Parts: sequence; structure tokens; C-alpha cells
Amino acid sequence: MMNAIETFPNPHPARDYHIEHQVHEFTSLCPMTGQPDFAAITIRYVPGSSCIELKSLKLYLHSFRTKGIFYEDVTNVILNNLVAACSPKWMVVESRWSVRGGIHSVITAEHGDRNLRS
Amino acid sequence: MMNAIETFPNPHPARDYHIEHQVHEFTSLCPMTGQPDFAAITIRYVPGSSCIELKSLKLYLHSFRTKGIFYEDVTNVILNNLVAACSPKWMVVESRWSVRGGIHSVITAEHGDRNLRS
Amino acid sequence: MMNAIETFPNPHPARDYHIEHQVHEFTSLCPMTGQPDFAAITIRYVPGSSCIELKSLKLYLHSFRTKGIFYEDVTNVILNNLVAACSPKWMVVESRWSVRGGIHSVITAEHGDRNLRS
Amino acid sequence: MMNAIETFPNPHPARDYHIEHQVHEFTSLCPMTGQPDFAAITIRYVPGSSCIELKSLKLYLHSFRTKGIFYEDVTNVILNNLVAACSPKWMVVESRWSVRGGIHSVITAEHGDRNLRS
Amino acid sequence: MMNAIETFPNPHPARDYHIEHQVHEFTSLCPMTGQPDFAAITIRYVPGSSCIELKSLKLYLHSFRTKGIFYEDVTNVILNNLVAACSPKWMVVESRWSVRGGIHSVITAEHGDRNLRS
Amino acid sequence: MMNAIETFPNPHPARDYHIEHQVHEFTSLCPMTGQPDFAAITIRYVPGSSCIELKSLKLYLHSFRTKGIFYEDVTNVILNNLVAACSPKWMVVESRWSVRGGIHSVITAEHGDRNLRS
Amino acid sequence: MMNAIETFPNPHPARDYHIEHQVHEFTSLCPMTGQPDFAAITIRYVPGSSCIELKSLKLYLHSFRTKGIFYEDVTNVILNNLVAACSPKWMVVESRWSVRGGIHSVITAEHGDRNLRS
Amino acid sequence: MMNAIETFPNPHPARDYHIEHQVHEFTSLCPMTGQPDFAAITIRYVPGSSCIELKSLKLYLHSFRTKGIFYEDVTNVILNNLVAACSPKWMVVESRWSVRGGIHSVITAEHGDRNLRS
Amino acid sequence: MMNAIETFPNPHPARDYHIEHQVHEFTSLCPMTGQPDFAAITIRYVPGSSCIELKSLKLYLHSFRTKGIFYEDVTNVILNNLVAACSPKWMVVESRWSVRGGIHSVITAEHGDRNLRS
Amino acid sequence: MMNAIETFPNPHPARDYHIEHQVHEFTSLCPMTGQPDFAAITIRYVPGSSCIELKSLKLYLHSFRTKGIFYEDVTNVILNNLVAACSPKWMVVESRWSVRGGIHSVITAEHGDRNLRS
Repeated sequence: MMNAIETFPNPHPARDYHIEHQVHEFTSLCPMTGQPDFAAITIRYVPGSSCIELKSLKLYLHSFRTKGIFYEDVTNVILNNLVAACSPKWMVVESRWSVRGGIHSVITAEHGDRNLRS
Repeated sequence: MMNAIETFPNPHPARDYHIEHQVHEFTSLCPMTGQPDFAAITIRYVPGSSCIELKSLKLYLHSFRTKGIFYEDVTNVILNNLVAACSPKWMVVESRWSVRGGIHSVITAEHGDRNLRS
Repeated sequence: MMNAIETFPNPHPARDYHIEHQVHEFTSLCPMTGQPDFAAITIRYVPGSSCIELKSLKLYLHSFRTKGIFYEDVTNVILNNLVAACSPKWMVVESRWSVRGGIHSVITAEHGDRNLRS
Repeated sequence: MMNAIETFPNPHPARDYHIEHQVHEFTSLCPMTGQPDFAAITIRYVPGSSCIELKSLKLYLHSFRTKGIFYEDVTNVILNNLVAACSPKWMVVESRWSVRGGIHSVITAEHGDRNLRS
Repeated sequence: MMNAIETFPNPHPARDYHIEHQVHEFTSLCPMTGQPDFAAITIRYVPGSSCIELKSLKLYLHSFRTKGIFYEDVTNVILNNLVAACSPKWMVVESRWSVRGGIHSVITAEHGDRNLRS
Repeated sequence: MMNAIETFPNPHPARDYHIEHQVHEFTSLCPMTGQPDFAAITIRYVPGSSCIELKSLKLYLHSFRTKGIFYEDVTNVILNNLVAACSPKWMVVESRWSVRGGIHSVITAEHGDRNLRS
Repeated sequence: MMNAIETFPNPHPARDYHIEHQVHEFTSLCPMTGQPDFAAITIRYVPGSSCIELKSLKLYLHSFRTKGIFYEDVTNVILNNLVAACSPKWMVVESRWSVRGGIHSVITAEHGDRNLRS
Repeated sequence: MMNAIETFPNPHPARDYHIEHQVHEFTSLCPMTGQPDFAAITIRYVPGSSCIELKSLKLYLHSFRTKGIFYEDVTNVILNNLVAACSPKWMVVESRWSVRGGIHSVITAEHGDRNLRS
Repeated sequence: MMNAIETFPNPHPARDYHIEHQVHEFTSLCPMTGQPDFAAITIRYVPGSSCIELKSLKLYLHSFRTKGIFYEDVTNVILNNLVAACSPKWMVVESRWSVRGGIHSVITAEHGDRNLRS
Repeated sequence: MMNAIETFPNPHPARDYHIEHQVHEFTSLCPMTGQPDFAAITIRYVPGSSCIELKSLKLYLHSFRTKGIFYEDVTNVILNNLVAACSPKWMVVESRWSVRGGIHSVITAEHGDRNLRS
């Protein structure tokens, strides 16, 4: 079971501003072999009416520690769950994975209004 | 109580020019645990009729030392307070936070006329 | 005989997102001398209804180990085989070859809708 | 339960030579909070009559994934277990841990004849 | 009042090994002006019968946040308190301070048997 | 009293070209405390009918050594004085100041036709 | 006499793709002094119906070893000869020369449809 | 007296291509003090019907060794002389001067059709 | 079957000097899984009466391409074969392997008189 | 007149420890031309019964701002004055000067028991 992503009210909802969280300690399991995978996750967004609370984000990401899941799936699942939790105006999630079988993978998924990118 | 941000008259109000202050020694408290947080703050602006006085800026930023406040809030509060104090034509505030729970965060908020960015 | 490229259903087909695989351990044979060639291969794509499975990709690329083939050909063959296997909306394959006879070569081939590049 | 460290006969026991394994994907649990810790582990040794087999080393290190254990303990436990498994003439284990509470820790433990260090 | 430094029994007292903790978020107050000072503290030691517990170390270092104290004093006080708490066989404490009045200071104090330095 | 900025006739007035002077050894005094401030000054311009003579520029900048003046003011004063002395078609002055109270400041002021920037 | 540049049929003529060859070991003779010159040559092109064969390219470039020729000439001659040999849709040749008499030279010449540059 | 800049016929006048010469060993004299100045000179151009011969360029640049001349003047004089000698379609000359009196200067002058810049 | 390592007479046997060959394109097979392994091999030696011929060294190293062999074994085998072929006064062989299962390995074996190391 | 160097009692006189102050903003005048000189000063010492107070050190160093003095002299004067003020067991003063006439100078002077160097 996944830990819930908690939010707090955006303290400044009248302004469009950028929030970036870089997580260097993500780990999940390979759905085919059960072996651990490691990734760095970057989340960047423009909040709507609520912001992601960091401790719950940490615990939410920890819940993948025992989950077998593909790189592509986990990236989109994180984006979907964060979007569902805080309804951002714009959000991008990028995962950079440690080498497996000589292959280094990077997955990037985006949601919302691209004009808010910077 | 916050220290007041003092200003002095913009000595050259007829010209649009850029002022940047980088503060590498910001610290506040986590509103949830009371533990200290550390950040580097960058302030960049085009002054209107007044400029921010540096010693009062230093003391103003020091007043967060004993304040429990979210990253997103402190970034916007600094922007709001500086805007209220000196009415800049354009201003951006960026905060880069030390790692907490394996997460490195960066918050960026902007005010005023974006055409004055550079 | 080439190993088959296996795929799995794109877990999030409703969203256009980017997948990148960097392979630093590719080797094939020179079609003229039989001597080994070494390359780094980068594959980047926006998936359609299916994604490339990594272990089969690794084994597929290993099958070039005993194959005599030109740089230009292998780059396009990999692109063609991956396109045939997973019908991406957009894909690019780049190969960067180790020095041979004092010459360092890079071949880049692209397929599909360039508007999806980033 | 820990995975067994397997060995294979040192193919060249008549010569003192150095073997180094760097593991960038180690993770265990904090014995006090249950939260995950992350480390890079370096193992360097001069083999006696046997060498450490890599796949069993990988699985052995994976078994710490669900274990609550102090930094100092895990470093010495790995050293003790590897020494017990392969009786090296000299061995050093170094663990470099991700930041926790603003603290970055490095633990280093050594076994055997220091004249064999380099 | 200072937070107590807690220890736990050295899990491997029969072996001399090195423990290093780098703290990048130390702050105290200038005893003359009351203004905040910032430093990076490095602690390196060979444990005797007990090791320093990290959370209590973090809280102990946090207690300097409201303390007016000279650079030289704080460096030696930390060394003295840590020595008193865990009786290491050897220990060094180094403090690197942020620039004040154009001056960058580094203080280094050492305790115990220098033959255990590396 | 400020040293006069001397000029010499632009030897090539028919052409718009760029002149850049970087001064790494500027020092003035804080108008509030009388303490010395240190900066690196960059001057870049397209000359009109005259060019700035370097030795007089050096002596002019030396005259700030005993002058109490704000960062913002000195940057604009230098720009104004240089503009008055040589009537450039375009000019920018940037000052990068040494850290004071943990704050690093950069001031940039521009004069004339921005189309001549590069 | 120059070595012939051989080609092989473009194995994938239906697709516009990029081929780059970097040659770090080019040497020719100064037409005025007879002294050796050294250059790095970069060739980048989109093939038409044929591709440049690498061994013949190497031998072709080796034939300049005893040839007295200006930097500008050799760059254009290589471009002309390669264009004549393989009729690319687009091609650029860049030569970067070792220092001679304190002068470092770079020559760049381009042929064909610039829209195919990337 | 200046050495003449010699040219040779552009061997490929039908094509617009780029020639760059970087000269790291330029020296002239200060027109006010007679002290030596040192600079790096970069010349970049698209040739018309003739190209600059390198040995004569070297000797031409050497003739400034005993000449007292301002930075701005020498940069434009070189540009003018080279333009007069070879009538390029486009040319830029940049001079980067060693520090004098704590000042580092860079002068840039351009001639001809800017659309040919790259 | 391994290719023979050929040698040629050391042209300057009266002097002890160093020869280093770095091979970035070594590949062998894992003896347990049959999967390809990749390494960079460094050979450094002081020659006795003969030197290693490079083309035969290349072909000798290529013969490992289809051989299943442990990292430790291949390093010592190369050292033994090279020592047997050319009887160096001193030699070291180092192999640096691509990551496998998150583990990066380096093996170093040395032969002969260590006083000749550098 | 020089500002007095103030001291405070060494808070830990029973232990030999190291104090280092790096001053990046030193300026004095050339005794021959009256022009400003700029230097970085490093002071490192083992205190006796007293330590140097930082604010008075800053003001003391500022008093050279209007003093004409040779590099060699200022380095030794600082050492003499600091030794007189605080009687260290060992002290070194190093001055690194900005380039003058293309010359970069470094002066180093030492006092006391060299066994206390590190």
C-alpha cells in the first residue's frame, strides 16, 4: 500500500511560482527479476491551491522500496499521484536510473500548461 | 517579530538597472518538527524610487532564525515584504534548501514586469 | 540470428512522454576486416501503445557482437527494428564509435514526428 | 537472514594482487527510526586462497535492504563477513553515507597486513 | 543548556577503525556582536568503548544556535564534550567559518594518539 | 575630489566596435560604517568620438578608495561619469562586491542603444 | 596522386540521417616552407545514394602527407572531392590547425541544403 | 614601417566559407609609458577573392613590437589593414590584453556583412 | 585458442625506461552467465631484452572476446602471458570493469622489481 | 598610526591547536609610486596564552590602506606585530600579491617552533 501524499494550502495562491524537489535516494524493484533498481527523481511544478508536504512525499517515495514496477510506469504513476494530490497548474517528473545490463535510462513525463515551464 | 527592511532613496531613479543580492547563510525552522532548515537566497530586482539597505536586509533575514515556516511560504513572504518595502519595478526571489530526508528543494517566485528580467 | 526485441504495453498511453536508454557497451565487427568495433548507442523515443523491454534490448544489442556491419547500417537497422517492434510516435538512434584509423564517427537517424523531440 | 557470500578459488594464489569492488547502490534501515539509509561501499583486498564471487556479493549486500543497523556496525559486519568468507591477506571496507540531519558520515575499517595496502 | 551527546556501545571494540562526520549546517552567535556565525564542522575519530549517536550529535550541535562563543572556543568545546562523552582513542575537530569582515577562519584541535590518524 | 577621466580621440569613429575593461582591484568605503568595500568592475562600451584613457581610468577608480558610497550609487556614478567624459553610443557598468554580512551583491547599469550590445 | 575515395551504397537511402567523421591525425605540408602542418578534420553530412567508405577516407587523407597546400585550399579540396565522390544532400568540412608561428587557424566550408544541418 | 600583408588568390572563391586565425603572442608598446603590452588576437573572416598568407601575417603582427599604440587603435588598424589587403566579405578582429594597472581589456571590431557571421 | 604475443628486440636495453599501453576496448564473457563483460586494461612495464609488438597485442586481447573468464583470472593471465612473452624487469596490469549489478570492479596485478615502478 | 591588535585569553591553553585566518581583501600603497597594491594574507598559528580578536585584526589590516610599504616589509611587520600582540607558540604569515608589471609575488615569514606546524 502506498503512503498518502499530504498537502498544505498554497500560502500564496495568487502568484504562479515554481517549486522543485530533487530526490537522490529513490529505490524500487524490477518487476521481472525482483532485483533492486535505483533512481534520482526530479519533481518541478507550479502549485494550484495546494502544495506537496515534504515528509509525506519522502514516505510516499519510500513505499516504492518493496514494489516491483517498470521505469516508465513508476515515472507516470508518481506524476499521476502527485497531480491527483495537489492539482498543480503544471508539473514534470524525471527519473534517472542506475545502469542495468550496461543500459542507463531516463524517463520524463509532463502534465498541464507548458507555458508555465519557466 | 520581523526586523524592518529599511530602504534608501534610489540614487539614480531615472535609469532601470539591476541589483542582485546572494545570501548564503539563511536559516529558519521547520514548521512541523522545529528543526533548523538552511538555504541560499538570491534576490534580484530593478529598483523603483527606493533601494534595499543591506544591513537591514541582513537583520531582516536573521529574524527567520527562530521562525517556523514552510519553504514555499518563506520564499513568497520575503518577496512580498521586499516588494512592500521598496516597490521594485521587477523582482525575483529564489531559495535553494539543504537536503532534508534525501530531498533537495528550490523555490522561485517573481513579481512585476518580466520584460525587465535582463 | 538477431534476438527478438520484446515489448510490454505502454502503461500510460494517454500521455506523450520521453524514454531514453544509453548503452555504453555496444560492439560489432567491421564488415571489411572482421576486427571488433565499439560504440555507445543512445535511443530516445515517445512510446505509442508499447514500450521496449530492457533485458530483450540488451540481448538484441548483444547479437551484433558477431555481426559484420557498417556504422551507418547498424544505426539504421537498430532504428528500423525498434520502430517495427514498438511503433513509437517519435524515435532517434545515435551511435558514437571508438577511433579507427584515427577517425571517430557519429551516426544519427530519426523516425516520426519531430515536434515530439522535447 | 543474510545471503551467503560465495567464493571461488583464487586462480593465481602465488601472487599478491589487489581487487577492488565499488558498490554505489547500498541501502539499509536506520535502527532507531526505521527510515532508509543510502551508502556507497568500497571493498579492497588482497586475496588469500579464495576470491569473492560478485553475484553473491550483490545479493549479500541486498540483504541489508530490510535490516535496521548502525553505520559503524554495518561497515564492520561487512568486513567481518567478507573476511570469514574468503580469508584475505588484507582488506579494507569504506562506507560513505548520504546526508542525514545535515551530517555526512564516512566509516572505514581495515583487516590484516597493512604492508599489502598498495 | 546544551543537549546531551548520547552514545551507543562500540559494536566492534576489538578493532581500531575510523568514523568521520561532516556537518555543513553549524551556526552559533558572535560573542561580541550577537550576529550569527556559520561553519562547516568535521569530526573524525577512532572509537573506544562507545560511539557517538547521530541524532543526539545533531541536536547537540543545534544547541549552539543561540550561544555566543568564539570560533576557537567552540572548536575546543566540541572536542572536549565529545571526548568526555565517548572517550575516543583519537579524535580531531575542524571548523571552517564563513567570511566575516573579509576574513575566512579555520580552527583545528586534536586529542589522543596521533599514530591512529589514518 | 575625483580624478578626471581623460579621453583620447576615437581613432576609428566611423566604425561601431566594442571596448571592455575589467578592473579586479576596486575598493571604496561603506557610507554607513566607514569600513572598506571591495569589488570587481566591468565596463563595456561602443565609443562615440572619444575613448577612455586607461591610466586616468585607473586613477579615477582609485579616487573611490577614500569615498563613502553605496554599491548602487557607485555603479551609476561610474556609468554617469564615464558617459559624461566620453559620450559612448552604448555602455554597461557591472560591479561584483565581496561578501558583507553573508551577502554577495552584483549591480548592473546600462546606458544608450541596446541594439549595440553585441 | 590522391588516393580514390571509395563509397558503398547508402543502406538506408529513404531516410535523411547524419554521419560525422572526426579525424585527429591529419598532416600536410606548408606550400611555402615545406614544413609539416597538423590538423583535426571534421566531416559531417547527410548521405545521398552513397556513403564514404572509412578505410579509403583514411588513405585519401593520408595522401596529403606529402602535399604542399594552403589551409584554405585543403579544406575546400576535401569538401569538393567528398562531394564529387558521394553527392551528399548536405556536407560541412572543418579543419582545426596546430599552432604555427604563434597562430592557431580554423577553416570551415559547407555544401548543400542548410536546412539539413541538424 | 609595417611589414606588408601578403595574400594569395582564394582557391575557392565561389563558396562563402570561414577562416579563423588565433594569435596568442602579440606584443606592442604603451603609447604613453613605452612599456610592453601583451595580447591575444583573434581574426575571423569570409574571404573575397584573396586570402591572408600566414607568414606575412605573422611578420605583420611582429612589426607592432616596437610601436607605441593604444589598444583601440591597434585593433582597428589590424582590421583596416587586413580589409585593405584582402577585401573580405566579412571580418572580425578581437584583442584580449594582459592586465595593466589591475585592468584587463578586450577590444572587438567588425567589418562587412554580419549575415555571414556563422 | 589465444593469439601469440609477438615481441621485437628492445632497441635500448642499456636503459630502464617505462612503456604504457591503455586498451579501452577489451571485452570477455562472464564465466557464469555467458553475458559480455567490458573493461579498460592498462599495461605498464620496464622492458628487458624485448618489447611487446602492438598488433599482436591487439589480436591477443581480441581472443578474450569469446572466452568465459573471471575478472581476477583474466588480469593475472594477461600479466602471466605478457611476462612469459617479453620477460620485463617490472610489469603491472590493471583492469577496470564496467558496472555489473551496481558493482564497479578494479583488479591490479604486479610482477618484478617494485623499485622500477616510476 | 596602526590600529591596536586586541586579544582575548586562549580559552583552551592546555592544548596545542591550530588557528588559520585568510584575508582576501588586503590593500596597501606602493612606497615608490603611491599606487595601491592588493594582496591575500594568510595567518596560521598555535596560540600561547592569548588569541587574536578578529574585529581588531580586520581594523589593524585596514590601517595599511594608506601606508606606503614594500611587500617584504608588510609581511614581516604583520608577523612581528601579531607575535608581539599574542605571543604564539608558532606562527606563519603569507602574502600573495596581485600582478604588477606582469609579476605575481608571494612572501612567507615564520616564527617559533616549527614542530608545531601541523
